[in-house]
Amino acid sequence: MTNTLYFTTDDQVVQQEAFDAICAEQEHIGYYHLPDQDIAPILEYCSTVPDTVETIAVIGIGGSSLGAKAVYEFIKPLHTLKRDLYFFESTDPVNITVLLEKFNLDKTHFLVISKSGSTVETFAIYKYIYSIKSDPSAYTFITDPGSPLEQYAKEIHAAVLYLPENVGGRFSVLSTVGLVPLALSGIDLEALLSGARHIKESFFKDGYMKDTLLKKATYYARNHAQYHINCLFAYSESLKYFCEWYVQLWGESLGKHQKHSAFHVGLTPIGLIGPKDQHSFLQLIMEGTRDKSVTFIKIADFNDNITIPDITLPHLESLDVLNSLPFEKLINMQCDSVMEALLNEKEIPVDVIVIQDTAEANIGALIFYYELLTSLVGELIDVNTYDQPGVEAGKRILKDKLAGLNKKTDSFS
Amino acid sequence: MTNTLYFTTDDQVVQQEAFDAICAEQEHIGYYHLPDQDIAPILEYCSTVPDTVETIAVIGIGGSSLGAKAVYEFIKPLHTLKRDLYFFESTDPVNITVLLEKFNLDKTHFLVISKSGSTVETFAIYKYIYSIKSDPSAYTFITDPGSPLEQYAKEIHAAVLYLPENVGGRFSVLSTVGLVPLALSGIDLEALLSGARHIKESFFKDGYMKDTLLKKATYYARNHAQYHINCLFAYSESLKYFCEWYVQLWGESLGKHQKHSAFHVGLTPIGLIGPKDQHSFLQLIMEGTRDKSVTFIKIADFNDNITIPDITLPHLESLDVLNSLPFEKLINMQCDSVMEALLNEKEIPVDVIVIQDTAEANIGALIFYYELLTSLVGELIDVNTYDQPGVEAGKRILKDKLAGLNKKTDSFS
Repeated sequence: MTNTLYFTTDDQVVQQEAFDAICAEQEHIGYYHLPDQDIAPILEYCSTVPDTVETIAVIGIGGSSLGAKAVYEFIKPLHTLKRDLYFFESTDPVNITVLLEKFNLDKTHFLVISKSGSTVETFAIYKYIYSIKSDPSAYTFITDPGSPLEQYAKEIHAAVLYLPENVGGRFSVLSTVGLVPLALSGIDLEALLSGARHIKESFFKDGYMKDTLLKKATYYARNHAQYHINCLFAYSESLKYFCEWYVQLWGESLGKHQKHSAFHVGLTPIGLIGPKDQHSFLQLIMEGTRDKSVTFIKIADFNDNITIPDITLPHLESLDVLNSLPFEKLINMQCDSVMEALLNEKEIPVDVIVIQDTAEANIGALIFYYELLTSLVGELIDVNTYDQPGVEAGKRILKDKLAGLNKKTDSFS
Repeated sequence: MTNTLYFTTDDQVVQQEAFDAICAEQEHIGYYHLPDQDIAPILEYCSTVPDTVETIAVIGIGGSSLGAKAVYEFIKPLHTLKRDLYFFESTDPVNITVLLEKFNLDKTHFLVISKSGSTVETFAIYKYIYSIKSDPSAYTFITDPGSPLEQYAKEIHAAVLYLPENVGGRFSVLSTVGLVPLALSGIDLEALLSGARHIKESFFKDGYMKDTLLKKATYYARNHAQYHINCLFAYSESLKYFCEWYVQLWGESLGKHQKHSAFHVGLTPIGLIGPKDQHSFLQLIMEGTRDKSVTFIKIADFNDNITIPDITLPHLESLDVLNSLPFEKLINMQCDSVMEALLNEKEIPVDVIVIQDTAEANIGALIFYYELLTSLVGELIDVNTYDQPGVEAGKRILKDKLAGLNKKTDSFS
């Protein structure tokens, strides 16, 4: 993985301070240690799931599903995996019904994932599915130690696994939360973690990533009042769910009150897929308000050698320039062309990440790169990167509404 | 469809001016007339596609695919449709390969849609598929009259249909561009258009929508320097692709130089799906910079009566408040709760649209509502709503790169 920045910053002191702060954070923030974990216990647990299980269904929302989905959808198109993964992450009744029709319930193992152990969506769905399939051996629960969910799992003699200490939901993809579903689907965890480890070492041991990440984070933080919308423009359909994961990580970590003031700050993440979004969002980047930075992601080798055939269509001869061009070359030329067009505008901060191919190590690297970048920017714009107090108000109101309903009537028909 | 605004504005004069401008635009902007069109020619064409055709594949990008996809994905989950629809909208080689494996090529009719008749992505894909299936009767072309594509289609004796006059790509879903694939899949065009017609009449004939849309557009335009990010928060998975359609419509129409100055303006669209994005983007709306408006969309009746069962989970008794609650009631209560939380913050402009169910008329209404709103806001912030000059620079650079390649070598292996 390479990352070329087309902007500069020379805040050596600020960069060193940010680096020191992140080094200190390792004491109490758990995700930094995930690339170095021993995965033997996870693989051992996974070996207990019988081969007759064809499908893994995750019941979880937000941090409990977005990470595994990002990796799975990145790997799946080009690899024959052992088991299919499905994600129940909505209380939309039609979505639940449609998903349940897609697989054989008798050959499915469910992973119920809730850090707090009391997520409304997760338990609404779990209760519904449990009423159809009430066999505790079909479920594994993943939660924080000591949560009510742990107690419940033990009571019904179902398997329970734990999140490591101090790992927040949106930073949990490389913990049990993401690794268990991914391992069960047949994805190579060791390769995935090796990619993350590579970035970690390069950052903490004075490698290439230290310089790059510090420069990028410092630039984003310094200019956050102007460039407060950060577009991730990935030229591959396989990165669609990685973009969704990025949106949660970035938005939920960096949108909040500053720690040392009551000031609202926020960096708004936008996930884009090329070339499709050249025909949608690009106009706004090119000519709209100059408040957006753009990071391109390119895949050097798609491992698919289909090529535009060498045929001439009468009256469309101008399109002969496409003839004999491999699609992977075309899509990357499209990316380069848009990047050049943005750079010509001068006022739009641009950088580009290139990964080699759609192997596990590369998505592991992307994940850890973005986690480190988020931590650095959070430190520099003075927010608590790891909490999300703003989502509590809606939860409290819902709780009151539900309690009110229960008082009024016994049923909700 | 109802739309309740939780903000006010009293610019009667500005509102009248905007209304007059939109009335005048009907002279030269084609989309306004689409709800009243005669669909007999489209239905007649569709009846010529044999019943042995099981799959319709659209080859098109941006405005040539997003609209039909939005309607199809809204209708599909709850309705048994006549034919499946697939969309080829990327030059990602893996995406093309994976899509082609999903259906039987011999039972597929392809719709090649390009307004200009020379879209690079569309013709790269078309050439590839045509080299596999070179039977002109398997293709119908949709383009502007007089385009090179029209001439090509005639030359190979394939069917060709036309876009109506002065209808831009992102405003074309209710023209042949969207209606042909949708009719072939079995969607009721008359119902779809009736929903759009209802909004049109209510707006132009002094109905409920005139007041609502003018107030909303005026508020958005007046406050666009502060509230320049407009979130559409839809509480149903079925509206996921409607959100993508909205992002193109809004971003590409409203992000550009002002007509009477060189000033960059832009309203940034964000599509969100509830409750999932409560666990992702909500924190940023609640506590981040106060630069976002939020429009909620609720569906009153999901036509799916699954209910959370009345079971108590030991140690999780607090979740009994969910028991016996229909999921459709829960998801709408979640929406109401988040809306209340945002309203309590005071500084976030909120409104809510409620549609009855996932019938064709309701998505038709949503489409026309958003098209009118876009036209009004574009008029008020002084941009040309209907062009997209900013995307040309990247296209020119690509063309040069392709021409350069051809000079250097005969093949690109």
